[in-house]
Amino acid sequence: MEIYFDNSASTMVDKKVQSAIDEFNEKYYANPSAMHRFGYLVEEEIKKCNEYISTILNCDVSEIIWTSGGSESNNLAISGYIEAYKKTGNKIITTSIEHPSVYNVFKKYEALGFEVVYLDVDRTGHISIDELRKIIDSNTILVSIMYVNNEIGSKQNISEIGQVIKELNPNCAFHVDFVQGFTKYKIDVKSSKIDFLSVSTHKIHGPKGVGFLYKNKNFRILPMILGGGQQQGLRSGTLNTSGIFGTYIATKVAYEDFDIIFSRLRELRDYLIDKLDIINQKYGIIVVNTKKNENFAPHIVSVSFVGIRSEVMLHALEEYNIFVSAGSACSSRDKKISSTLRSIGLNQNIAESTIRISFSKYNNKSEIDSFVDVLSELIPKLNIKK
Amino acid sequence: MEIYFDNSASTMVDKKVQSAIDEFNEKYYANPSAMHRFGYLVEEEIKKCNEYISTILNCDVSEIIWTSGGSESNNLAISGYIEAYKKTGNKIITTSIEHPSVYNVFKKYEALGFEVVYLDVDRTGHISIDELRKIIDSNTILVSIMYVNNEIGSKQNISEIGQVIKELNPNCAFHVDFVQGFTKYKIDVKSSKIDFLSVSTHKIHGPKGVGFLYKNKNFRILPMILGGGQQQGLRSGTLNTSGIFGTYIATKVAYEDFDIIFSRLRELRDYLIDKLDIINQKYGIIVVNTKKNENFAPHIVSVSFVGIRSEVMLHALEEYNIFVSAGSACSSRDKKISSTLRSIGLNQNIAESTIRISFSKYNNKSEIDSFVDVLSELIPKLNIKK
Repeated sequence: MEIYFDNSASTMVDKKVQSAIDEFNEKYYANPSAMHRFGYLVEEEIKKCNEYISTILNCDVSEIIWTSGGSESNNLAISGYIEAYKKTGNKIITTSIEHPSVYNVFKKYEALGFEVVYLDVDRTGHISIDELRKIIDSNTILVSIMYVNNEIGSKQNISEIGQVIKELNPNCAFHVDFVQGFTKYKIDVKSSKIDFLSVSTHKIHGPKGVGFLYKNKNFRILPMILGGGQQQGLRSGTLNTSGIFGTYIATKVAYEDFDIIFSRLRELRDYLIDKLDIINQKYGIIVVNTKKNENFAPHIVSVSFVGIRSEVMLHALEEYNIFVSAGSACSSRDKKISSTLRSIGLNQNIAESTIRISFSKYNNKSEIDSFVDVLSELIPKLNIKK
Repeated sequence: MEIYFDNSASTMVDKKVQSAIDEFNEKYYANPSAMHRFGYLVEEEIKKCNEYISTILNCDVSEIIWTSGGSESNNLAISGYIEAYKKTGNKIITTSIEHPSVYNVFKKYEALGFEVVYLDVDRTGHISIDELRKIIDSNTILVSIMYVNNEIGSKQNISEIGQVIKELNPNCAFHVDFVQGFTKYKIDVKSSKIDFLSVSTHKIHGPKGVGFLYKNKNFRILPMILGGGQQQGLRSGTLNTSGIFGTYIATKVAYEDFDIIFSRLRELRDYLIDKLDIINQKYGIIVVNTKKNENFAPHIVSVSFVGIRSEVMLHALEEYNIFVSAGSACSSRDKKISSTLRSIGLNQNIAESTIRISFSKYNNKSEIDSFVDVLSELIPKLNIKK
């Protein structure tokens, strides 16, 4: 049996979601823009999805824009917003631990002459809200901060950050990359003062190639994809109807057992961290970068086996059918040291020895037992320096 | 039983495609960028898809870029290319009958100061290659011409156009919107001198939300979506793996019976046009905008019932469970007269009375018989002026 601990990279599609998609494609294959009844029936199904998603986020139905996933959502929010507002200010703020689909867009605008502030994080991967306070000014048009970091699981206090931004500059927009947080945390975009929120479906047991962006209707964006004018002209292209329906079902399934799944994931995280602490008494090379508290997401554990390179550990584990990630999921073939691990102050040696374990509702404690047993076998073998 | 004649708007997902997707999602849910074996297995599957698609197009595996569909492919080709080459020339050429995801991108660059030529078409919807010859100069960086028009089915002589472009200016890139042509026509991108080719999966009995762009490796594009650097950095975002696999299966299924399906579609088209001619002897209000020859695609029939507004006819037909399109598929709720119908010289009255019938392999002659019977009932009722 395989042990899949790479759920922050991608998750298994829930069988309920897959069968809902199958049924949808069989019944509702018309184009939702078609003028005939068959098209309207598809559109009605999509409206149902929008209504559900907007209810759980506490926004308007018209504030949901469907995209091809988290990366497009992040790009559309940031580029689309900056292109619309670039004449109103020149300063944009993000953190040093964002996903590349946020970070690289900020890099692009930095090259174009924008003043970009990359907020530092402390050793646990959290920004300082006091520092943010000092930086926001009347020239600041956008702040983009991720909810849950994809590599170490650190969770920012988004609601407090939202209040601070709007208190200092009500015209400044607030974008949140919620890809690793959606269905782990409930969010109220209005009370948290969030203007843009990015979500990806394949991280929540839905299919790849679909996601959405919540966009506050009081802010404008310029579209990236022009065409038939779908989605209020903000994102043209025939709607990915079954992907949207799949997102709806995946979200509903997650929300049905929200608290139970959260507790179970947190239990798995804490159980693993405890076990790692125990075996470390013997080996002394284990550094756990994720903490057992509410400032960390329930499903991610970052751990360094100092002296054992991540790839070596990863490939050794896969011999036991255990699948984990080395560094960041979405660019894990990249040999550079992750900016998140650098930002929390890990030295090169530790950073290069870091793996990420990420859980889903399908994982259980006995898998962790097996994993830790395998680690106890592997560490003495792989840590040749000792 | 319903009669679905709106296949140029979207097609039913083939059961073989859907079950292949289901199986894929169950087996290969890892992220194809993941470093572990499970990720590599998914990547191997995607390579298989790329190899198949590149073989049928006669291009390199590295020249396929997966996108969220036809609109993104068109935008990425045109915007991505112009952004990369805008310093080398200022003139771009397209036609007056392009899909909005091409046309609106040209409009954008026109507003930014580019010299844009919109080639006229004749009464059958075909451009003049002689006119194109006169217009291409050393300042021309891009020509974009659709293979099959989505509203009337006119098919351009893309291969001859490709030769002419490269003969006059070898540095000028040639983009072809192949959305309505893929799996209807075989194409060899090298011999046709095509540099960019856009395809959408949901038009060929695959799912919505996926498509691809063939991109000649000798031309550069700037990416629209930045992030983890997937697809050589040209289109970031986790690959829509099951959508890609679905495209592969849908294409394979279509290519297995390529000639048979082409003949059957053409037979349906000709059969319908003949029947319309016959009933028109009685009513005298029918104008068929599609011709029964090889300059028109096999699956599209555009027909005007002069004096009966398209929406009226469309809604009357849907009472009989017959689904057709009024005007263009992808922006059919738009009340403006389609630029294609205007371009072929239809006056407002005729253009506003035009519907599109588009076939797939699932249609048959007896459906056409039923359709024509219903038309014979409806025409006297709806044509009140007579």
